[in-house]
Amino acid sequence: MANQASIPVVVIGAAGKMGREVVKAVASAPDMTLVGAIDTTGEHQDKDAGELAGLSEPLEVPITNQLESMLAFAAQEKQPGVMIDFTHPDSVYDNIRSAIAYGIRPVVGTTGLSPQQIQNLADFAEKASTGCLIIPNFSIGMVLLQQAAVTASKYFDHVEIIELHHNQKADAPSGTAIQTAQMLGEMGKIFNQAVVEETEKIKGARGSLADEGIRIHSVRLPGLIAHQEVIFGAAGQIYTLRHDTSDRACYMPGVLLAIRKVLQLKSLVYGLEKIL
Amino acid sequence: MANQASIPVVVIGAAGKMGREVVKAVASAPDMTLVGAIDTTGEHQDKDAGELAGLSEPLEVPITNQLESMLAFAAQEKQPGVMIDFTHPDSVYDNIRSAIAYGIRPVVGTTGLSPQQIQNLADFAEKASTGCLIIPNFSIGMVLLQQAAVTASKYFDHVEIIELHHNQKADAPSGTAIQTAQMLGEMGKIFNQAVVEETEKIKGARGSLADEGIRIHSVRLPGLIAHQEVIFGAAGQIYTLRHDTSDRACYMPGVLLAIRKVLQLKSLVYGLEKIL
Amino acid sequence: MANQASIPVVVIGAAGKMGREVVKAVASAPDMTLVGAIDTTGEHQDKDAGELAGLSEPLEVPITNQLESMLAFAAQEKQPGVMIDFTHPDSVYDNIRSAIAYGIRPVVGTTGLSPQQIQNLADFAEKASTGCLIIPNFSIGMVLLQQAAVTASKYFDHVEIIELHHNQKADAPSGTAIQTAQMLGEMGKIFNQAVVEETEKIKGARGSLADEGIRIHSVRLPGLIAHQEVIFGAAGQIYTLRHDTSDRACYMPGVLLAIRKVLQLKSLVYGLEKIL
Amino acid sequence: MANQASIPVVVIGAAGKMGREVVKAVASAPDMTLVGAIDTTGEHQDKDAGELAGLSEPLEVPITNQLESMLAFAAQEKQPGVMIDFTHPDSVYDNIRSAIAYGIRPVVGTTGLSPQQIQNLADFAEKASTGCLIIPNFSIGMVLLQQAAVTASKYFDHVEIIELHHNQKADAPSGTAIQTAQMLGEMGKIFNQAVVEETEKIKGARGSLADEGIRIHSVRLPGLIAHQEVIFGAAGQIYTLRHDTSDRACYMPGVLLAIRKVLQLKSLVYGLEKIL
Repeated sequence: MANQASIPVVVIGAAGKMGREVVKAVASAPDMTLVGAIDTTGEHQDKDAGELAGLSEPLEVPITNQLESMLAFAAQEKQPGVMIDFTHPDSVYDNIRSAIAYGIRPVVGTTGLSPQQIQNLADFAEKASTGCLIIPNFSIGMVLLQQAAVTASKYFDHVEIIELHHNQKADAPSGTAIQTAQMLGEMGKIFNQAVVEETEKIKGARGSLADEGIRIHSVRLPGLIAHQEVIFGAAGQIYTLRHDTSDRACYMPGVLLAIRKVLQLKSLVYGLEKIL
Repeated sequence: MANQASIPVVVIGAAGKMGREVVKAVASAPDMTLVGAIDTTGEHQDKDAGELAGLSEPLEVPITNQLESMLAFAAQEKQPGVMIDFTHPDSVYDNIRSAIAYGIRPVVGTTGLSPQQIQNLADFAEKASTGCLIIPNFSIGMVLLQQAAVTASKYFDHVEIIELHHNQKADAPSGTAIQTAQMLGEMGKIFNQAVVEETEKIKGARGSLADEGIRIHSVRLPGLIAHQEVIFGAAGQIYTLRHDTSDRACYMPGVLLAIRKVLQLKSLVYGLEKIL
Repeated sequence: MANQASIPVVVIGAAGKMGREVVKAVASAPDMTLVGAIDTTGEHQDKDAGELAGLSEPLEVPITNQLESMLAFAAQEKQPGVMIDFTHPDSVYDNIRSAIAYGIRPVVGTTGLSPQQIQNLADFAEKASTGCLIIPNFSIGMVLLQQAAVTASKYFDHVEIIELHHNQKADAPSGTAIQTAQMLGEMGKIFNQAVVEETEKIKGARGSLADEGIRIHSVRLPGLIAHQEVIFGAAGQIYTLRHDTSDRACYMPGVLLAIRKVLQLKSLVYGLEKIL
Repeated sequence: MANQASIPVVVIGAAGKMGREVVKAVASAPDMTLVGAIDTTGEHQDKDAGELAGLSEPLEVPITNQLESMLAFAAQEKQPGVMIDFTHPDSVYDNIRSAIAYGIRPVVGTTGLSPQQIQNLADFAEKASTGCLIIPNFSIGMVLLQQAAVTASKYFDHVEIIELHHNQKADAPSGTAIQTAQMLGEMGKIFNQAVVEETEKIKGARGSLADEGIRIHSVRLPGLIAHQEVIFGAAGQIYTLRHDTSDRACYMPGVLLAIRKVLQLKSLVYGLEKIL
């Protein structure tokens, strides 16, 4: 059980790659205590969540597949609790509703919820006066890049995006690159007005045409991890913003920030940039 | 003489490399008219400023070395005039005072004025209720980079700067790199706290130690022009901001913006970031 | 007239951008003398080639549009002469034949000659036992990049190319990028065998599919000049070769090398890599 | 025991990070069989080497600390065996002698042997007519980079090196960067002859001065892994070679190549480049 000053945290998907990383991050945060660890596959039932995450000492928190009873348990803590969920969009919607029903604040890192689902959850959180955070990208560096790109797009009329990922990523462009183009497109400006008539000698050379004239190029190679460049051009100058991810550890500062912030909220908030 | 809707502009140092670029930019701006072109060397006396700048048509503005009489002439225009000055710090101080005395707004691109000189000029502009802009860096891209870096420095504790210039640049680090480090240092944070005891097997390997623990590395090679990278690091991620300059043309959007903005000011303003 | 130790050089297209650069380079080479400067447009007739190229001193070589008589004149020099031609493919074929007929060695920087034309010229040079160089890319750095890429392609099975140019370049991919892919493709290896089924959410994201599975991505922005990256990937590593061109000056070491080398040849040679 | 067509391999340091990676690589190579796994710490005694390396199936090779008896055991295989050693320079010298005495070919990935030690081992291998490979850098990409850099250094007179590593690396510049500078220095050329008198406004800005005028700059940040850039400059062009390491997996193609090649050797060979 968490001590009085500590935030009780329940991790859903605690046996997954991201879940294990969250368990480690919560365990090392001085103001948080892991009180529950859910894995619905049943594969790691009753194993210690800390040992599974690679910690040298057990956390005395066994993995369980009983979400409801775990939320009920966490609701008895003196401090209001937080649920972290990085699992599939299919389960996330119900998990959020359950958590809010128990007064547990959800912090969710999924990108697959529909606008209608998000609206429903916002209404639900509003009625319960309970904070809820949906964060499609927990990387502070990437969010800073996107905000800097939006600012730059007021002064530059030409921009292209290159995203580079390992060759096990099947879809192109990446969701983050498409989202970045959308954010720039919201300026209401058409970018990259041609000064010559462009010809593709080989189809696809000029990349994919995303929102508002912005081109996205997707590179896929083994040895790459996850990288994105936004390149602005004007007469005589180039301004480039680049983000490189090499490890899931990069999401943890954002996760810990979200856990602390969600307790101060009374409604649903979408996007890490809103709490920076 | 400028038409009624047009801003009358006097260019000091109109025969220099930057001055010629400014002459071309002003000539192509629909809301400005070049009314005077000063070159105190006397070398290009009476040549047409437009032809000297490489325009195909003359601007009918002869180069002269008579600053005072040119300012007096510009002061007779129906619209308030602007003086652009990219010359030596030695002459700039007096030029600014002269311009303000004639009601001409100075836009100055020099970095060499002392804090005391700037304070004196601020007092002088204040008393005359006349706008005056001192802009050490007219590159909008570089100013955006610096602002984005300041924002990022709130969330990242580790940062280094690499600046790369042609090998005819004698001083290192570049003034802009030092200024960038100062801006980050103003956060009041000590960056790059060591996690191991660092050893330089060859002296200088870790670059120069600028403000607040920030390292600056200076590369000098023929083929380079002017480039700067600010690299932020945290566990699992790198966030890089890079600016490449390939031509003086990159400063002209900033110059034209400054000409338009100085007319709305009543005092001295320092830095392009203040008018973005 | 050239002194005995000096190579007499005739420049075709001496009033063009590349021609002027060649005039300057030849003028500063201690072992060469400009003896003729051709411009068939007639626009700069009788102007001094050196002054037109921006030299402070005239070279006493007037621009002329009389190719044949200039070749005849150059053929009277004590040393065998060299003709440099950067003009249109339309005229280059005949120029080369004329030069060889006069015993002048051609060094040609055009990419537009057909394989049949090149074969004819090779036969013609062979019969005359006269050296002739056709160099589609005079940039030593780019040729080194291509050779290093060919070597790397023996050890890496995955590679993509990004080429970045100013937005006044109409065609994509660049000729050099296509040529680089061809050179890698000559290995007889199929690159970039997929490990997952790739999906383009927006058409063109994965770039253009050039020879042997190699992807080329073309970025077009103002502020860019001419840049190419070849990126090799394998488990745990990325190896990148990049070339940046900022000025036509970069071609001149290759041009001067070619002038010296063509005198030692007895037949037609194609490509800078053959004389490195 | 290995089947007839298979190369028997003994891994020294099999419980270390690199050793585990080697165990996995050997296990997945169709033409090799792991026959022995040494860990002198005794910490993992009798554990299965495959399971320790993270394989899902055991390899039926227990970790042992008995090097001599393991070499004797491996010497009984029908095929000549190979010993892989990534342990400390202190133990490597004796390990190599023991292996050669048993007719086992050593493949060693250490950088700490003295020239005298290497000479002794070369004599020893020569007398025994036994192949032996000492490979300070097993990364094929980095070796290709170094070879391409040596080639480029014939044509470029200006070059600087930037190496970037995580901030837990204590020494700067990296051994590989120093080695790269040495290789370029062997050309007998003095690089980076100054065209202006350089001034460091902050000491260290211009990096460390390595062999023959070459500057090395060392960046240390969390989030970086291991990266090196060699940047060549000449008038109007920049040619950059960059290598990024993200995982020890990148060394395995070089390790497997060395295992196959050492069997064809009769003496000591130093450096991966010799067997590419």
